[in-house]
Amino acid sequence: MKKIINNPDDFVDEVVEGILLAHKDFLKSVSDDNRVLARVDAPVPGKVGIATGGGSGHIPVFLGYVGKGLADAVAVGNVFSSPSTQQMAQATRAANGGVGVLHLFGNYTGDVMNFEMAAELAAAENIQVKRSLVTDDVASAQKGKEDTRRGIAGLFFAYKIAGARAEEMASLDEVKAAADMAISHTRSMGVALSPCTLPAAGKPTFTIGDGEMEIGMGIHGEPGIERGPLKSADDIVDSILGHILEDYPYKEGDEVAMLINGLGATPPEELYIMNRKAHQILSDREIDIYKVYIGEFATSLEMAGASISLLFLNYDLKRWLDAPAESPFFKQYEFTN
Amino acid sequence: MKKIINNPDDFVDEVVEGILLAHKDFLKSVSDDNRVLARVDAPVPGKVGIATGGGSGHIPVFLGYVGKGLADAVAVGNVFSSPSTQQMAQATRAANGGVGVLHLFGNYTGDVMNFEMAAELAAAENIQVKRSLVTDDVASAQKGKEDTRRGIAGLFFAYKIAGARAEEMASLDEVKAAADMAISHTRSMGVALSPCTLPAAGKPTFTIGDGEMEIGMGIHGEPGIERGPLKSADDIVDSILGHILEDYPYKEGDEVAMLINGLGATPPEELYIMNRKAHQILSDREIDIYKVYIGEFATSLEMAGASISLLFLNYDLKRWLDAPAESPFFKQYEFTN
Repeated sequence: MKKIINNPDDFVDEVVEGILLAHKDFLKSVSDDNRVLARVDAPVPGKVGIATGGGSGHIPVFLGYVGKGLADAVAVGNVFSSPSTQQMAQATRAANGGVGVLHLFGNYTGDVMNFEMAAELAAAENIQVKRSLVTDDVASAQKGKEDTRRGIAGLFFAYKIAGARAEEMASLDEVKAAADMAISHTRSMGVALSPCTLPAAGKPTFTIGDGEMEIGMGIHGEPGIERGPLKSADDIVDSILGHILEDYPYKEGDEVAMLINGLGATPPEELYIMNRKAHQILSDREIDIYKVYIGEFATSLEMAGASISLLFLNYDLKRWLDAPAESPFFKQYEFTN
Repeated sequence: MKKIINNPDDFVDEVVEGILLAHKDFLKSVSDDNRVLARVDAPVPGKVGIATGGGSGHIPVFLGYVGKGLADAVAVGNVFSSPSTQQMAQATRAANGGVGVLHLFGNYTGDVMNFEMAAELAAAENIQVKRSLVTDDVASAQKGKEDTRRGIAGLFFAYKIAGARAEEMASLDEVKAAADMAISHTRSMGVALSPCTLPAAGKPTFTIGDGEMEIGMGIHGEPGIERGPLKSADDIVDSILGHILEDYPYKEGDEVAMLINGLGATPPEELYIMNRKAHQILSDREIDIYKVYIGEFATSLEMAGASISLLFLNYDLKRWLDAPAESPFFKQYEFTN
């Protein structure tokens, strides 16, 4: 895979530099090495802070969702690698408006370990920290083991909901409850058509045959649940939504927000072809689509593929979903599709 | 190249269906076959209409820029193929608020011919039509022959400026003058790393060696100005901006809006690495970056590559650039980066 890059070792630093130059109205660096960023007005006094972070290579995840109505600070790791405990502690401090900080991030071993130690460091500085782990990837563990699942594009819904709740000046417990509600109401699954190449490694994260695809593959190339010949768009959506709807105890008349997410190399046209079929399937199941988000929300460098996430709504989740938000990669000023 | 599609012959119809389902708050179909779309409130009485169109495969171009402060109606062709005269005439009618319609589109032979005949049909129906051709691609013709250049990502700036001028309830001549000013102040150039595959053809639009790139390649694979070994991101940006700044008679202290556009398969990270170098170069030349847009604004299916466009600003262009706009693929409610 050919890339528009310089020295692979400078990849993350140059990406962050380019992002800070483009989005200085939203983001500021709060560490000398630019690996901890925060919204320009962070910390917001009296507001629960939301700190996040994880490996690079997934833009807009994670730093693209730092802003009003979303996350307050982020620790930026190397490509597909967890940031350090110190970086996460620094993000926690940057997010701390005096009433506690929620650690909100995807369920990956390295991130969990480092955020856990960062929480201990923060506690020693009298910053109260709670944690919500995003676990939306249905393909990563069977029903009954939801808590062990990986976090993928559903991260977006978790930021959106928790961020809106925090802007209401809710307490740390209330913000965590909103985040946990978003997570327990979200289900996602992806499909990969081609691998990506880590800049420093220079070779693909996995191999897949010319005519093959893998349903359920993770955003770092973690194994999925079904590898086989490339199916039609309709069959892929049928399979993904079939797994999601088997997993979540929905009922007719339920309302959902749907996110159709491109993994990097898949063009917008294909996401809209998926949207067409998804509308048909959800309509057949008598599930109402309240709002649909289509585009690149959680990528995997130049991996070809896509994921679908459903957030099953209730009164509160709808209100928080509709709340305004403003970050480098996501802006919503009023409720319009 | 593997694609998430169904029957290749249904590609465009299914894309448009998926788009109408997702963006019904912005877009409506004004033809039985869904190949002519308009903003939901079109025609806007007393406002100059802006009709556009062209081949599919470039989302958000063209239909993604139909909305308030942008274009009013669009004719949707097959992949990389001009829409028909009848479709363009229908887009013209849909855009007509009674005070004339501007045909605003990229300079490609088929589109020019069909829009010309559509203008004649419209004239017979007493709709006054003028035309502005987008010709921003510096690589497509030498200096002195600017009028013969192709239109690429600079289309976005032309829609933004002409759309803002039309919302001010300016006359057809004034809207055309604003569009022409945007076009004459815009310069773009692209780089391609890999070809794309037309769904129905099933084979790549061109071939390029494993370690090669082509600077100046058009969004349908039209030949560029330099093919050679893949360079570093910094060298690519240096070359592209070098050509642009040689072509446009800028002076120190000029302000620009910059668009760094991904062609489809290039991930956001790489666009930000380009942004970093572009900031350095423009700063060295003492050109101020007033605003930067980064993302996918004019794609070429799953082609890997990017383009840079500069809009050299003056007082009026700045005002129109900052004006609010709202369409499926571009929303700007206030001036923030």
